[in-house]
Amino acid sequence: MTDTIPTQAKQLFSTVTDDGRLELALRTVPVTAPGDDEVLIRVDAAPINPSDLGVMLTVADSDAFEAGDNAASAVIPEAMRRHVAARQGISIPIGNEGAGLVVAAGASPAAQALLGKTVALAGGGMYATYRTAKAVACMIVPEGTSAEEGASSFVNPLTALSMIGTMRLDGYKALIHTAAASNLGQMLVKLCLAEGVELVNIVRSAEQVALLQSLGAKYVVDSSQPDFMKALTEAIAETQAFLAFDAIGGGRLAGQILTAMEAAALKTQKANGPYGSTQYKQVYLYGGLNTAPTELNRGFGMSWGIGGYLLTYFLQRVGQEETTKLRDRVARELKTTFASAYTSRITLQQAIEPATIAAYNRRATGAKYLITPQG
Amino acid sequence: MTDTIPTQAKQLFSTVTDDGRLELALRTVPVTAPGDDEVLIRVDAAPINPSDLGVMLTVADSDAFEAGDNAASAVIPEAMRRHVAARQGISIPIGNEGAGLVVAAGASPAAQALLGKTVALAGGGMYATYRTAKAVACMIVPEGTSAEEGASSFVNPLTALSMIGTMRLDGYKALIHTAAASNLGQMLVKLCLAEGVELVNIVRSAEQVALLQSLGAKYVVDSSQPDFMKALTEAIAETQAFLAFDAIGGGRLAGQILTAMEAAALKTQKANGPYGSTQYKQVYLYGGLNTAPTELNRGFGMSWGIGGYLLTYFLQRVGQEETTKLRDRVARELKTTFASAYTSRITLQQAIEPATIAAYNRRATGAKYLITPQG
Repeated sequence: MTDTIPTQAKQLFSTVTDDGRLELALRTVPVTAPGDDEVLIRVDAAPINPSDLGVMLTVADSDAFEAGDNAASAVIPEAMRRHVAARQGISIPIGNEGAGLVVAAGASPAAQALLGKTVALAGGGMYATYRTAKAVACMIVPEGTSAEEGASSFVNPLTALSMIGTMRLDGYKALIHTAAASNLGQMLVKLCLAEGVELVNIVRSAEQVALLQSLGAKYVVDSSQPDFMKALTEAIAETQAFLAFDAIGGGRLAGQILTAMEAAALKTQKANGPYGSTQYKQVYLYGGLNTAPTELNRGFGMSWGIGGYLLTYFLQRVGQEETTKLRDRVARELKTTFASAYTSRITLQQAIEPATIAAYNRRATGAKYLITPQG
Repeated sequence: MTDTIPTQAKQLFSTVTDDGRLELALRTVPVTAPGDDEVLIRVDAAPINPSDLGVMLTVADSDAFEAGDNAASAVIPEAMRRHVAARQGISIPIGNEGAGLVVAAGASPAAQALLGKTVALAGGGMYATYRTAKAVACMIVPEGTSAEEGASSFVNPLTALSMIGTMRLDGYKALIHTAAASNLGQMLVKLCLAEGVELVNIVRSAEQVALLQSLGAKYVVDSSQPDFMKALTEAIAETQAFLAFDAIGGGRLAGQILTAMEAAALKTQKANGPYGSTQYKQVYLYGGLNTAPTELNRGFGMSWGIGGYLLTYFLQRVGQEETTKLRDRVARELKTTFASAYTSRITLQQAIEPATIAAYNRRATGAKYLITPQG
């Protein structure tokens, strides 16, 4: 290796302080030599996913950060503090996933096999210049694929695959997805086209409709339009999509989806009195872009469910062997189905600048930030 | 048989009329002789369950009924009409369950075996003086048990049994029940005591706490008290009751139960970052005493579910053999575990009196109406 093995690294931490602030700090941490079955990765690229922002910023107002000494912090509203009480005083290393070069490896054959390779990892604490990791947790990025191209190999690709996997395991025929113009949503459009799975995309603007149609999406409904419920019901009736994955979480959307599913079901079956159709209808909330309460008017019979959804629960459900297959597929299709696009690249230092924090937390559709720790 | 077989019966029907009213009518209908495998039942007693009221009165204001010709009717608010559009013009026979004497039987041995016996039935259309039914659908009420004692042999007993059955099938250790001072709730208290199942009862007043404690209930929490959430959390932590059956449906209660479940889970496990505990938490809504929207603040991690619940789905899940076993058990324990108490007995004619409609729809805890069609 041409790289010198460092003795120190820079790493980003998120902490709820004792005086009720959320602090993002860039700290110097010691680098220990990798153990037998470990490797040391020089992290070259790590995305900021919505799931990262939840841990990084929690309930702090991202427009209220003030710069400090190699840190930035914002007050946590009094009313929200009990939600983060369990984290108080604990420095949490952040960054779910990323990719980089293996610059040192332990003695084991598995570790040695990775030396000099570009690998992707979803182990947490990836917003760092260097990161020690178990060799078995690393995924080798195929020859000719850069660390940047491999940085988002886990969260979005596996989540998209898990949605289709859940659909098949639970016997549904098609899918509904909200906030469908997101990076994940665009990936899901491509994946469903490749798999021949019908997908009903719910977006919030005409621009987003056009974007998804340009990717080949067949069903795109715009919740900002007055005919939203009618269009959604028709799309569900055509596709028989009685399973939805919702990134919005709050407000009325999840309930509206169930209502449209019920109306679609009643096109082909009679209602069982006040209990509605017998068609089972499921909405999984996998995100919370709208932090307001979820409101359900229950006008959709008695055969329905709504619940939280995490990729890790799906991976536990299908087991290690299937997870490995899914990872292998992601590696093979990193430049096609599972390609991610970034609109901004920032350094670790920039990641703690108040204006940048406000910008990457805006979560504008299409905007996606990549941290380049070597930059 | 000493009874003469009638050629006509009186029967109650609920209809959404073309001019937007809900009509309850007492009509004369022909009685056809039972087929080979059928019997004719002289209905002696049929309860008014909350599930009956949903079909009988739908969204009509029960205080607004006006008397008509062998009927009563009330206007359905304009905004609610789309909810009942599918029923318009259809006369629905009402009364889910009841019991009475078999006064005529078809030629088949199964039908002949019921002649002269008191049987219970959950076949719908039980608010009638006479009712033809398949012999196989009838449950013989044990010797020495009256029709009145057998009238509620299905809905409440099987629902209570299904809650424990669901708990066992899905691997939960204990149960939570809301509106727990209801007839069903009191039955569930007795059943759980008999089965050694821990039950957390949620009620709304000190009187209801005392009532359930007098039945031997160990955990009774009062949602009208300021320490409700604390008491609920402690009861869940002690019992590990991560499955709830909620009759209220609307408002914040279902979400509060999930929040208390999560707090109880976090007493013995660490939160998985912003995703909360990994303890799966389920609330089934089996009723809608509060017709307001269900509001979930989602402050309970990502491992949760909420959904509709119907007894029939449970019975389909466990199959015919298990259903028969459950029915046999109910028959054996009709005077003990599954005894129902009625506070008012009314005739079919009284059931269409406006003041009586308002009274039986009040659904006051502890009040339960029995229709006695021969009265």
